[in-house]
Amino acid sequence: MIKVAINGYGTIGKRVADAVAAQKDMQVVGVSKTRPSAEAFVAKERGYPLFIADLSKKAAFEKAGLKVAGSCEDMCKLADVVVDATPGDIGATNKPLYEKLGVKAVWQGGEDHEIADFSFNSSCNYKDAIGRQFVRVVSCNTTGLCRIINEIDKEFGVTHVHAIMVRRGADPGEIKRGPIDAIVLDPVSVPSHHGPDLLTVLPHVSITTMAMIVPTTMMHMHAIRISTKKTVDRERVIELINNHPRLGLIKKTAGIKSTAELKEFAMDLGRQRSDLYENCIFEESIFAEKNELCFFQAIHQEADVVVENVDAIRAMMGAEKDAKRSVEMTNTALGFVHIQNNH
Amino acid sequence: MIKVAINGYGTIGKRVADAVAAQKDMQVVGVSKTRPSAEAFVAKERGYPLFIADLSKKAAFEKAGLKVAGSCEDMCKLADVVVDATPGDIGATNKPLYEKLGVKAVWQGGEDHEIADFSFNSSCNYKDAIGRQFVRVVSCNTTGLCRIINEIDKEFGVTHVHAIMVRRGADPGEIKRGPIDAIVLDPVSVPSHHGPDLLTVLPHVSITTMAMIVPTTMMHMHAIRISTKKTVDRERVIELINNHPRLGLIKKTAGIKSTAELKEFAMDLGRQRSDLYENCIFEESIFAEKNELCFFQAIHQEADVVVENVDAIRAMMGAEKDAKRSVEMTNTALGFVHIQNNH
Amino acid sequence: MIKVAINGYGTIGKRVADAVAAQKDMQVVGVSKTRPSAEAFVAKERGYPLFIADLSKKAAFEKAGLKVAGSCEDMCKLADVVVDATPGDIGATNKPLYEKLGVKAVWQGGEDHEIADFSFNSSCNYKDAIGRQFVRVVSCNTTGLCRIINEIDKEFGVTHVHAIMVRRGADPGEIKRGPIDAIVLDPVSVPSHHGPDLLTVLPHVSITTMAMIVPTTMMHMHAIRISTKKTVDRERVIELINNHPRLGLIKKTAGIKSTAELKEFAMDLGRQRSDLYENCIFEESIFAEKNELCFFQAIHQEADVVVENVDAIRAMMGAEKDAKRSVEMTNTALGFVHIQNNH
Amino acid sequence: MIKVAINGYGTIGKRVADAVAAQKDMQVVGVSKTRPSAEAFVAKERGYPLFIADLSKKAAFEKAGLKVAGSCEDMCKLADVVVDATPGDIGATNKPLYEKLGVKAVWQGGEDHEIADFSFNSSCNYKDAIGRQFVRVVSCNTTGLCRIINEIDKEFGVTHVHAIMVRRGADPGEIKRGPIDAIVLDPVSVPSHHGPDLLTVLPHVSITTMAMIVPTTMMHMHAIRISTKKTVDRERVIELINNHPRLGLIKKTAGIKSTAELKEFAMDLGRQRSDLYENCIFEESIFAEKNELCFFQAIHQEADVVVENVDAIRAMMGAEKDAKRSVEMTNTALGFVHIQNNH
Repeated sequence: MIKVAINGYGTIGKRVADAVAAQKDMQVVGVSKTRPSAEAFVAKERGYPLFIADLSKKAAFEKAGLKVAGSCEDMCKLADVVVDATPGDIGATNKPLYEKLGVKAVWQGGEDHEIADFSFNSSCNYKDAIGRQFVRVVSCNTTGLCRIINEIDKEFGVTHVHAIMVRRGADPGEIKRGPIDAIVLDPVSVPSHHGPDLLTVLPHVSITTMAMIVPTTMMHMHAIRISTKKTVDRERVIELINNHPRLGLIKKTAGIKSTAELKEFAMDLGRQRSDLYENCIFEESIFAEKNELCFFQAIHQEADVVVENVDAIRAMMGAEKDAKRSVEMTNTALGFVHIQNNH
Repeated sequence: MIKVAINGYGTIGKRVADAVAAQKDMQVVGVSKTRPSAEAFVAKERGYPLFIADLSKKAAFEKAGLKVAGSCEDMCKLADVVVDATPGDIGATNKPLYEKLGVKAVWQGGEDHEIADFSFNSSCNYKDAIGRQFVRVVSCNTTGLCRIINEIDKEFGVTHVHAIMVRRGADPGEIKRGPIDAIVLDPVSVPSHHGPDLLTVLPHVSITTMAMIVPTTMMHMHAIRISTKKTVDRERVIELINNHPRLGLIKKTAGIKSTAELKEFAMDLGRQRSDLYENCIFEESIFAEKNELCFFQAIHQEADVVVENVDAIRAMMGAEKDAKRSVEMTNTALGFVHIQNNH
Repeated sequence: MIKVAINGYGTIGKRVADAVAAQKDMQVVGVSKTRPSAEAFVAKERGYPLFIADLSKKAAFEKAGLKVAGSCEDMCKLADVVVDATPGDIGATNKPLYEKLGVKAVWQGGEDHEIADFSFNSSCNYKDAIGRQFVRVVSCNTTGLCRIINEIDKEFGVTHVHAIMVRRGADPGEIKRGPIDAIVLDPVSVPSHHGPDLLTVLPHVSITTMAMIVPTTMMHMHAIRISTKKTVDRERVIELINNHPRLGLIKKTAGIKSTAELKEFAMDLGRQRSDLYENCIFEESIFAEKNELCFFQAIHQEADVVVENVDAIRAMMGAEKDAKRSVEMTNTALGFVHIQNNH
Repeated sequence: MIKVAINGYGTIGKRVADAVAAQKDMQVVGVSKTRPSAEAFVAKERGYPLFIADLSKKAAFEKAGLKVAGSCEDMCKLADVVVDATPGDIGATNKPLYEKLGVKAVWQGGEDHEIADFSFNSSCNYKDAIGRQFVRVVSCNTTGLCRIINEIDKEFGVTHVHAIMVRRGADPGEIKRGPIDAIVLDPVSVPSHHGPDLLTVLPHVSITTMAMIVPTTMMHMHAIRISTKKTVDRERVIELINNHPRLGLIKKTAGIKSTAELKEFAMDLGRQRSDLYENCIFEESIFAEKNELCFFQAIHQEADVVVENVDAIRAMMGAEKDAKRSVEMTNTALGFVHIQNNH
């Protein structure tokens, strides 16, 4: 059993914890919180030992009926791998601790590539992660781009990608972030950071990205145009999607044309937390003409990296050398069925 | 086994179907849809026989891979009770069919009281529903008001209620309704219809209501002030809430102060569809001074009436004469634990 | 003086009326409303004679203190040109009336090209509108695309345009339209109608468009990529923008990075109704590399077509044969100064 | 001429500057900014001398083409009165400067009452401000409450007020604040701070307030219930509103039922920045029964305190001893006509 600690039990951390707990070859040895918030009670319900960053707050936790198992350092000592899901830029400050303890660590895409000198996507470079001490799982948007671009590249040869990311303003449970009524260019300059970030995984791809933020909480939406060496065949594109374990196809027949309807469908299907681990590519939007491929894909910012974290752990531990088998193990443990099989 | 048909498999209908299917003494004999949408695929996944209003559309359903079991009338013939969860004002047009077939029917709060001449709330008038052919379950807002007002009235004697309803603009999956950036008085006039609607269940209560719509999808929020005959005791109010099977208490310790955080907590707890069947009364907001009681309660518009529908079915069939026992059966079958027990 | 009637005094109609009234060579002979709403009182304040579609409602208007000058047909008889700003698809039903009266008419982009067999943009085809009875001013999005693409085409030669339109969900005063929390693909299929619509003005351009709707009321945002024959020179692009009377440049120095800040700036500058008649191209976003040009432009859906309507009127009447002079007359009468001159 | 400096040229400051500049007996001697943002260019367009808090940033301003007239302290030396419109809690840190210079200062409602030991509303306590060095203008919500409660109290005698404030989440130009999709109790506890704040102006009133935040930018909405000693007469209430120079009546005839339609109406009427300086009380909502009065009022958070600042200046300088005359001067200079006269 691989012992996993979750440092930062928030939007991503709580999902990774549940995904890890569902794996046959892994267990959660602890999760950490800084405040006795609602999520701390969730950890208690789940039976995850609760560790806290600042032991001086122990009394506040215990007054709330939350048992404290120790400090973050105590937690890390129990682990083979720490998944660092602390807020962006905090993760970097934890690196000395992981180095001191000699524990393996996985960071999220909010940290710079340099923190681990290796950026991970299970579909693209699983093998290169085997045995590493430090790995960074790229952000939700970059993960979504990597998966589909790599497939198209292998089949048709990608000459250039032009991707527009229309991003959600906040996660559903976040109440302080906006905007309320604006489209915000973030950044105004072109290209956005997403293009260069993709290159940390797929260094040979030519890509231009533009990004904005809109007042929704549900999912990001990508409008993508890929130029290819070979003529693109639309039916083959759909086949590639159906053959990939983490590419979902939203069929025209379901009548879904928005992020909200998509999340509702995931909820109705009984997905835990209504999560969509896969890219959600809209079948009807797939437009292929000569050497050009266009489509829309929705990316669930809270979920698509969760399964990547699980695979990263397995690779780092050398517990499974084959990417496909790890992905299948991860998906199976989560009862994750391709959304295209549900409609 | 009570045979239940769900006429209108939408926001409410799909939840009632799942709640009915979970009961030991009930089964779903069919659900109806008008179009082969995403929800029709959900019905298929759940194994509910699918009936359609307009048989001329059968080919469209079958082309989408959805088997059609028959017409709405066919479905109603199979049922002991039909839960009519069609959109507001459509339900009334179905009454002649139910009368013709002699089948029992439950309507929702979007219909007028006169459709059934009896408006139901399990905490207030379960006994009066026993044996009835037709029952109307009051709307989500009225249900939320009935539950708490009745409890306060029994204990302290209510002289007047002043309730402001801040309503969500659309359900999460609805993409056409607004507003996007406005507070809409709905209606501008005072009182809103909610006050008179409460009187269909609790005719002796004096109440004034004011209502508005805001750009959120999560839950309604009620700001309530109750004037009482006896002096209000805050601790006793909390006790009443804790003793009532459908009054939830959001404790201060969880740090939840919004509808979004509340839904996130329900999601994290693993509630199906993140549903909150109970009134969610904010402990910290409970303010008692002499003969005045003020508090905030959040009402999940998609969920609180679902459990009431189940109890209404049981009462109409005379399957259980005692309200408390029916409520307990319903709650237990859903694995419904008071949210105050989770934190 | 050119006599202009405004059929449909709503979002666009009220702006066209004010813009016409500001011109030295034009006057407003009447505006029409269907209901005695707030906008009818605005027409009264402005001193525009008020005509109504349905004379049977005259009493309702007069009870509200609104004098009715006659029917829509009466109004059209007084006019040289009718600007039809009725809601989409209604405009077509008015054509027989205009034909019967032999009056000139301008429709908006919500109608099909075929209604007038001529689609107008003052920067692209003013001369071809001279003397015509019927003209259609293309939609706000198409207007914004025409202006900039035509300029880039003249200078660098356009080989292909890829444009993503992120559209506002409703206008600020509309309270029923959503979405509240969703990104809606509208349409899901690629290309959206905007590409073909551009061809009604610039038939030789190769263009692919993708469109979505987001929960904001402020402005549309276009993410544009233009491939060119000649190498693109960034400084020359900025020069072209500065030289065009309806292309605005949002300079980096102002620190504006959203539609909301842009509208606030227009408001602070004292623009009537905070209107932005010009394309608002973000200087910092202009990215030129070899034969590729990328940039963001915000389009004020309520305003950019208003000035085009005025020019269309002048062309149809043959009152001014030169596009540049008409545009200058229109702009000057509105006190319209390039936003780049304000910062 | 009263010399006025505006410390903090933001949402409130820029409006106060324009309102001061419009007065015959006042002039703007300077405005201050911390960054060379869009608003700094607006100040330049308006011709207001620009001062900056941190002179080390002078080069950055001048590089942007913005002339810097000096430091904040330089500006304050030129003034008879400084209007401090810096963000909440910053204002307090400026007090020592004003004391050192012996200059009069007006703070906004974001500061505590104690900063000036006097909280101002022109309808309630103008006389008490005469000659004072320091005055605090209460917040937009408290201003709106003071105006109407004081009128009702003088006529009918107020025994208790119960007010629910449904607040906008951010101003239209703010892009970082949320929530996007939530109703946030702010605070969860009852009463909110608004009740006690009202007592700084009307100390004898009994009031309970409850407050929440919703995802809109337009205006706050108050749902108010006032209990009175004398029987309330609805017609008399309307008369009181019509007779008060800063109470607006939104008549039923205009068909306005939301904050968005109200702002649109103000915009169409040509109000500068679409500002609503008056309480906007919805005629149709006014409900009087025996000793109870209920109604909705919308409060424009950016505007209602602007005119109060102008009156406060005049009172502090002793330039006009009569409240009514000052209010009339202020209103007249702004061309401010009761909105009820526009429909």
